[in-house]
Amino acid sequence: MRAEILSIGTEIMFGEITDTNAAYIASALPEYGIDLLWVTQVGDNPGRLREAFARAWERSEYIFCTGGLGPTEDDITRETIAEMLGEAMFVDADQERVLRALFEARGVREMPARNIKQAKLIPSARAIPNPRGTAPGWWVERDGPAGEKRVIAVMPGPPAEMHHMWDAEVAPELERRADSILVARTLKTTGIGEAAIDEMLSPLLAGTNPSIGIYARADGVSARIAAKARTREEAWALIRPVEEQARRILGHAIWGIDDDSLASGVGRMLRDQGLTLGLMESASGGAIADAITDIEGASDYFKGSLVTYWTEVKVAMGVPAEVPARHGVISRETAEAMATAARERLGTDLGLAVTGIAGAEPIEGQPSGTMHLALFDGTRMEYTTFRYFQGREQSKRRIVLQALTMLRRYLMERAASGK
Amino acid sequence: MRAEILSIGTEIMFGEITDTNAAYIASALPEYGIDLLWVTQVGDNPGRLREAFARAWERSEYIFCTGGLGPTEDDITRETIAEMLGEAMFVDADQERVLRALFEARGVREMPARNIKQAKLIPSARAIPNPRGTAPGWWVERDGPAGEKRVIAVMPGPPAEMHHMWDAEVAPELERRADSILVARTLKTTGIGEAAIDEMLSPLLAGTNPSIGIYARADGVSARIAAKARTREEAWALIRPVEEQARRILGHAIWGIDDDSLASGVGRMLRDQGLTLGLMESASGGAIADAITDIEGASDYFKGSLVTYWTEVKVAMGVPAEVPARHGVISRETAEAMATAARERLGTDLGLAVTGIAGAEPIEGQPSGTMHLALFDGTRMEYTTFRYFQGREQSKRRIVLQALTMLRRYLMERAASGK
Repeated sequence: MRAEILSIGTEIMFGEITDTNAAYIASALPEYGIDLLWVTQVGDNPGRLREAFARAWERSEYIFCTGGLGPTEDDITRETIAEMLGEAMFVDADQERVLRALFEARGVREMPARNIKQAKLIPSARAIPNPRGTAPGWWVERDGPAGEKRVIAVMPGPPAEMHHMWDAEVAPELERRADSILVARTLKTTGIGEAAIDEMLSPLLAGTNPSIGIYARADGVSARIAAKARTREEAWALIRPVEEQARRILGHAIWGIDDDSLASGVGRMLRDQGLTLGLMESASGGAIADAITDIEGASDYFKGSLVTYWTEVKVAMGVPAEVPARHGVISRETAEAMATAARERLGTDLGLAVTGIAGAEPIEGQPSGTMHLALFDGTRMEYTTFRYFQGREQSKRRIVLQALTMLRRYLMERAASGK
Repeated sequence: MRAEILSIGTEIMFGEITDTNAAYIASALPEYGIDLLWVTQVGDNPGRLREAFARAWERSEYIFCTGGLGPTEDDITRETIAEMLGEAMFVDADQERVLRALFEARGVREMPARNIKQAKLIPSARAIPNPRGTAPGWWVERDGPAGEKRVIAVMPGPPAEMHHMWDAEVAPELERRADSILVARTLKTTGIGEAAIDEMLSPLLAGTNPSIGIYARADGVSARIAAKARTREEAWALIRPVEEQARRILGHAIWGIDDDSLASGVGRMLRDQGLTLGLMESASGGAIADAITDIEGASDYFKGSLVTYWTEVKVAMGVPAEVPARHGVISRETAEAMATAARERLGTDLGLAVTGIAGAEPIEGQPSGTMHLALFDGTRMEYTTFRYFQGREQSKRRIVLQALTMLRRYLMERAASGK
């Protein structure tokens, strides 16, 4: 099945917003055996929108489009489709009821007259419910060129509305229609190179269903086991025995699966090992704590972070004043004293600390991007240093990556040693 | 001038990466009087890439394309352009030298043979330097259909390389060629509604060059003064008197200009007023500190943040134990005690604190998204509460917005009162 995406909106053409809807849809399509061949972004312009729809109708069996469903005259996605198909738009009584109820629920006595266009349909379209906004989607189904079937799925532009409509309505419909379903399990590893993993898994690599792909990413090497079958359940049944074998082979090198981020993988290991974590952050300015607390349930193992941006605050939080005075604030010694202090002040099993230079200006004669990280468990002190500078925000993101990588290694070694 | 963008890469079609290059280019084009009419994303597929280039060549004077310049056989952007133009590719001696020097500088003794294709040109193309990677860009210039000129600017896909090439090479070239330059000054305000600003500025709104547009955004209402002239200097000369008048009219309602974020606007006001800031964050998990420290020079006014995720840590950091015990952790009283404690422990002029529920689970009978914020200056305590829940990460982002908005209002009132 060939698909294309139309992302519609003049604000996209001015770069005022970045279209993320297309990537959201694109990443979901392989599951249903649908090949995405084109993505077109176009403004709310009648001529160009007509051209884009006509070309899509000619070449693609599925057209997913987002945007241009607002109540104003600029929004012409519905009108353009109706015109292309030669169908008249009409106000659907059910949709009008839904829309008026929605305004009432929001405390608006009289729905603005212009919103009535959001209740319109054409004979080939059915409405797709949108509980998060006023614009329902359209599911259009008709015969296309050369006797092929055509589907146009029209969704609103705001990502929160679009994602909800996709997950609740469009994706399940695609699953019902799919001849086969592709599912995948990704095993995320660290500490072993891409080539070594390829060799270790070579007994499993011969098969084509499931197939295994090996990918190197920023957070380690991943093995992706993918299977295709008539149903989701059958596909998982194909994956399961291969996954078990791969897990046996890779063992402790695995730190997470599927969409696990470093923060969620580290969080699961902390919880499994019954450990609590406290931070003292300087250069990262709270970014490590922010990443860790993005994970639901982080309060099970994360007690807090002392963001000690000023040296006097580091000292107030337990770093002996003579350490930065003698060795410099940007030093291994200060990082280690911070890790020790974090653990003590926050009463945690582990203390992790970072001091360094995220800004563009050198400090204490050390260049931008210099970072010192320390991790203390009450017995063992781990330390690492690196230098990375691609602007302030990128540098902060790199510290987060390195800090979580350090924690991950510590926790995996601890698990492997059976402590 | 009509332009279109081609974003090339199979990983885009699988949703593995979101194309942000197009928005980067799109937002820059109006300055040079170039209208962006189409953006197409397409995989590294010969047939479709040929089709995309042929269509762009037919309809657009400028074609900006990114991606497909790597050393592997999959990367066929250069080959496709050469084929369309009927020109033969050749290894350019200068580019080969640059490329070999680059590998040498990286400590690679022998450049991999496949990389030589990155030194290739066609007669109509000149190389665009790429100090951040191995692939130079192409600037292609030829006559197109109907005697019109055509330019194809080819840039690498990785955003860091692409942005640098755009800023250093492509944008300056567009500026040299532009008949006129459009520049704009945005005045960012708060505390006055969109309609009121429109009325206040009505004496200035009549002109068309400069023109003034009024826009409501999440961080307040903006007035954008835009002028077009033969040169950048002439355009600024048109803007200056209008900006002065607008500043006189809007006065203390202005908190920032142009790309100022709330964090940079708040930071400038803290610096101007000679105040230091300390935080105690619970539900935001360090996200407020992270946003504040994204601004270069934040250490001038930001001393630190106590991310007190656990109640025992709040108490260890100076919140009287009886306050959360009596009123609950998620309460106005706890937020106020946290603001007081942050100010004391960190030795700052201002203490800002937040306690609430960023996760999906209700706490103490209060629903997800409940937030209490307090700001203390040693004399006056400000307090605000709100509820917002659209998932954990969105909720955290909303806390940051609210906290910075609270700080901004405080600092603007303080400035207006002449303290």
